[in-house]
Amino acid sequence: MKRRYYFDWAAAAIPDVFPSNVFPFGNPSSKHAEGREAKAALEDARRRCALALGAAPEEIFFTSGGTESNAIVLHSLLRRQNRPGAGGVLVSAVEHPSVRENAAALERLGKPFTLIEVEQDGRVSGKTLEAALNKAEDPRIAAIMAVNNETGAAMDMPGLAEVLRKAGGAPIHFHCDLVQAAGKMPVDLRSWDVDSASLSAHKLGGPRGIGLLYLRKPLETLCAGGGQEGRIRPGTENTAGALALAECLERRFPLEAAAAGYEQAAARWKVLIAALKSLPRCTLIPQDREEEDRRFSPYILQASFRGIPGEVMARSLDDAGFAVSTGSACSSGEQIRPVLAAMGVDKTTAFEGIRISQGWGTVMEDIEALLEEIARILRTL
Amino acid sequence: MKRRYYFDWAAAAIPDVFPSNVFPFGNPSSKHAEGREAKAALEDARRRCALALGAAPEEIFFTSGGTESNAIVLHSLLRRQNRPGAGGVLVSAVEHPSVRENAAALERLGKPFTLIEVEQDGRVSGKTLEAALNKAEDPRIAAIMAVNNETGAAMDMPGLAEVLRKAGGAPIHFHCDLVQAAGKMPVDLRSWDVDSASLSAHKLGGPRGIGLLYLRKPLETLCAGGGQEGRIRPGTENTAGALALAECLERRFPLEAAAAGYEQAAARWKVLIAALKSLPRCTLIPQDREEEDRRFSPYILQASFRGIPGEVMARSLDDAGFAVSTGSACSSGEQIRPVLAAMGVDKTTAFEGIRISQGWGTVMEDIEALLEEIARILRTL
Repeated sequence: MKRRYYFDWAAAAIPDVFPSNVFPFGNPSSKHAEGREAKAALEDARRRCALALGAAPEEIFFTSGGTESNAIVLHSLLRRQNRPGAGGVLVSAVEHPSVRENAAALERLGKPFTLIEVEQDGRVSGKTLEAALNKAEDPRIAAIMAVNNETGAAMDMPGLAEVLRKAGGAPIHFHCDLVQAAGKMPVDLRSWDVDSASLSAHKLGGPRGIGLLYLRKPLETLCAGGGQEGRIRPGTENTAGALALAECLERRFPLEAAAAGYEQAAARWKVLIAALKSLPRCTLIPQDREEEDRRFSPYILQASFRGIPGEVMARSLDDAGFAVSTGSACSSGEQIRPVLAAMGVDKTTAFEGIRISQGWGTVMEDIEALLEEIARILRTL
Repeated sequence: MKRRYYFDWAAAAIPDVFPSNVFPFGNPSSKHAEGREAKAALEDARRRCALALGAAPEEIFFTSGGTESNAIVLHSLLRRQNRPGAGGVLVSAVEHPSVRENAAALERLGKPFTLIEVEQDGRVSGKTLEAALNKAEDPRIAAIMAVNNETGAAMDMPGLAEVLRKAGGAPIHFHCDLVQAAGKMPVDLRSWDVDSASLSAHKLGGPRGIGLLYLRKPLETLCAGGGQEGRIRPGTENTAGALALAECLERRFPLEAAAAGYEQAAARWKVLIAALKSLPRCTLIPQDREEEDRRFSPYILQASFRGIPGEVMARSLDDAGFAVSTGSACSSGEQIRPVLAAMGVDKTTAFEGIRISQGWGTVMEDIEALLEEIARILRTL
């Protein structure tokens, strides 16, 4: 089989942490020895996750992943503020579909919806957030992702929190989709001053079907059931998954670990970006992205190649052994690129965009091989 | 360590099917080779699940488990019939909290709620269903579980479906919580004529965090996201979990496999029930449950012991090495027993109830040991 070079870590990390087959199998809600053992393991996983996140165990709620964590926060509005026109949602124009589309569903149910525009670099600024706040109707939740999954745009979360806290009216719950930031940059939830944050194990090298919701204060949620996870997330708890998630977070989330990974990723990205910038047919998205640019995560890059549709470039690279994507995997069925449109990227450039994303398993030789292959494709297409 | 006898299979089965660590790790929504390989594995899992269920692959939607599957169906009402007083829900009085509490949440959002009473044996009858239909306001969804998780009461699903189909007015979506029936009795979804059904892998010997929703016709759902699973369930697909679920269903769900397991379980339960019936202080719930009684699943038994609170009996058994429960694990925090109350069981008997549940790993020697221990406890308490 041909050697593969994997550059789609933003869609799925190469897993290196697996759920154990010898986890305590009991139902953590059962009171017998098997149940108590499972409960102890689950709470151990929660404590370990909390420690890695710099949070308290009672702020950690296990879910099936980032998508569900985002939905829990947004749908909580249906349980509060249940009057027509009450309980508004603000979401950035570059949110993941699991935020964007749930907010749109809330709008259809009568919840006022306000889009937070982004600057040309794909980042929410204090100015665009203030503009959104000024026109928002009864704003109660604002959802802004830490790192965009298509461009790597990294938001100034503490700065945006400050703007939100200064807004008049009822307090606004500040929700942060951490999926692409977790383990890939230092995240200090306390100083970020967010009310909730979501992440998925499978972007961190762990299994599918497990993630968590960090929640500073309990919410009344829409989904009800057996009362597990402090009534935040019903369903028999995934003990083995929670233990695997704890291991992922311990390896990759703590400030020093994330910072070390960030610097290594940035060094590799510097080489990639410098080389791509030197190609006349290549345009980075946004165009002014620098070799070393703290406005962006060094794990994700969006670039377009003049005259080559993104789909064609991605397929050509795939044929040669390189996995890259166009949009996010979660919107690979979509014909439009709302994230790029929100940045004011013209249609042709957006249509020619591909996403290159790396992980802790990526080495400089992979970058060099990718650059060679792109050069080869540009000579033939 | 003391030998353990596990009699809480209704809360969690002893797992014997584990997710593989060598599953294709790609994101099934990605178009590159890694993504296509993952997609193929996921669709293979779907085909295998469908075959075991006697369904079509396009009727199978992977979820995180039974609780989420139930919520997806119930919350779909929020997307349809979005007028005050429109879109009524009927749920049986003995449903699992994930049905009962979500229906209650819908009621708070203005959806008419109707309880379907049960007979003294804990089963919905044609008569109680008709009575509920007669007083229901704009009924659109009726949720009736196949096997109750506390008493084992097995509903006559094809008979109830017939009653529903004969009701006038708009068609009623018939949803069936299959969690305690799947793999434990022959289930023929086609002849049962249900519109949807939920099940969880972990009750079938598989991992946590994966289950499915059988859905005859697509629903417009509340939770939105990346469009995965035909827009029924967003979030990166759990390929390894889906493959493990397929293996569980192939082993245990097909009619012959389930029938064989049923007969073996019934033979063991006959011994247990006969012996308990001979104890003067023991009352089965319901009282008229027979040694061989097709009204009940032979995997679950509810029994009370005069003068001994259920919690005390369960703890005494646990101390001696036997895991049993009182209510369902999912409501172990509740002080009341709504399922028993709905059957007209008096408070003292309900307070003294314990649940004994077995699985394919249970052998006759376990039953004998349990009976000996119960006799010993009755001599001392």
